[in-house]
Amino acid sequence: MNAEKNARHAARMARKKAIIDAHIAEANIDTGIMILLTGNGKGKSSSAFGMVARSIGHGMKVGVVQFIKNRTDTGEEAFLGKHCEWHVMGDGFTWETQNFEADKARSEEAWAMAAKMLNDPSFDVVVLDELTYCLSYGYLDKEIILRDLESRPEMQHVVVTGRAAVPELREIADTITELNDEKHAYKAGIRAQKGLEW
Amino acid sequence: MNAEKNARHAARMARKKAIIDAHIAEANIDTGIMILLTGNGKGKSSSAFGMVARSIGHGMKVGVVQFIKNRTDTGEEAFLGKHCEWHVMGDGFTWETQNFEADKARSEEAWAMAAKMLNDPSFDVVVLDELTYCLSYGYLDKEIILRDLESRPEMQHVVVTGRAAVPELREIADTITELNDEKHAYKAGIRAQKGLEW
Repeated sequence: MNAEKNARHAARMARKKAIIDAHIAEANIDTGIMILLTGNGKGKSSSAFGMVARSIGHGMKVGVVQFIKNRTDTGEEAFLGKHCEWHVMGDGFTWETQNFEADKARSEEAWAMAAKMLNDPSFDVVVLDELTYCLSYGYLDKEIILRDLESRPEMQHVVVTGRAAVPELREIADTITELNDEKHAYKAGIRAQKGLEW
Repeated sequence: MNAEKNARHAARMARKKAIIDAHIAEANIDTGIMILLTGNGKGKSSSAFGMVARSIGHGMKVGVVQFIKNRTDTGEEAFLGKHCEWHVMGDGFTWETQNFEADKARSEEAWAMAAKMLNDPSFDVVVLDELTYCLSYGYLDKEIILRDLESRPEMQHVVVTGRAAVPELREIADTITELNDEKHAYKAGIRAQKGLEW
């Protein structure tokens, strides 16, 4: 690499730095935000649990409610559950039970737990793992969910995960990441791997 | 909800269960996989750190190399760094330094650390956070990176994060999630929040 190319690289990076610095200077608000991780790709719950780990590292108080999953042998619960409030409140994926009324009742119990956290300013971060399914399958009343989410303490963050988030959740979220499945080991016959997927 | 609707729900879920069960029966291979988290959306590193937490929960040995970030006050390092090998080896985003040769040298040092882990079967999971930039900016030699990734121990998982992954990384990955930024709090003037983004 010659000096001219080096200089061009430095110039391009300087322009990039100026743009980014200007954005950083503009963004100066601190507030509780709602992050929505949706789409079919692998990494939605993992991402929420990464934020749990970060928050624990800062000494923040975290609550997690799992709406669909029911297994209690996961790595995330074994490790993170020791450092925050962790509630596994699903009864498996909805197609496992095939009983609408039972799933609805279970979801409502889980929401009662979530609502308690969303009403408690001592919680800095609340994770509602796989909540989206409860809305898209009609297990929970959208109006109640939206009201409880929107009336939470001002500085409280909330992270919602799950496929196919309904438009109302997208509307109130501050940050939305859509995770798209470009390739998946599963399709090559590799089953869910310990540590990566549970 | 009437009985008929209940029955239709049960039937639809039963069909879904049959399809999913068939897929699960097919996927029975255990092997080390490479997961690539790319795209512009928030949640790539968080997702990798969630997998770190899961793996620690299962008693697995994890190594993390951060190729670009240089801050050492993050929640993830404070918490997860106590339970795995954690190396912050970047010197800030590349546009901060504007010095190609220095960034290249730093990246090569970071790769030497990564290569050591990728050659050590005692590591169950290796996270290469923001590696993609080192390839797209030409700081690292693609051939060496691909060779070291592909010759790692058979059961070792590797998780690579960062925007704009080059095609060669996509080619060798088993699972690829593209994270798209549908909405970002940043654009509403909200700066990076502790616990969520660092």
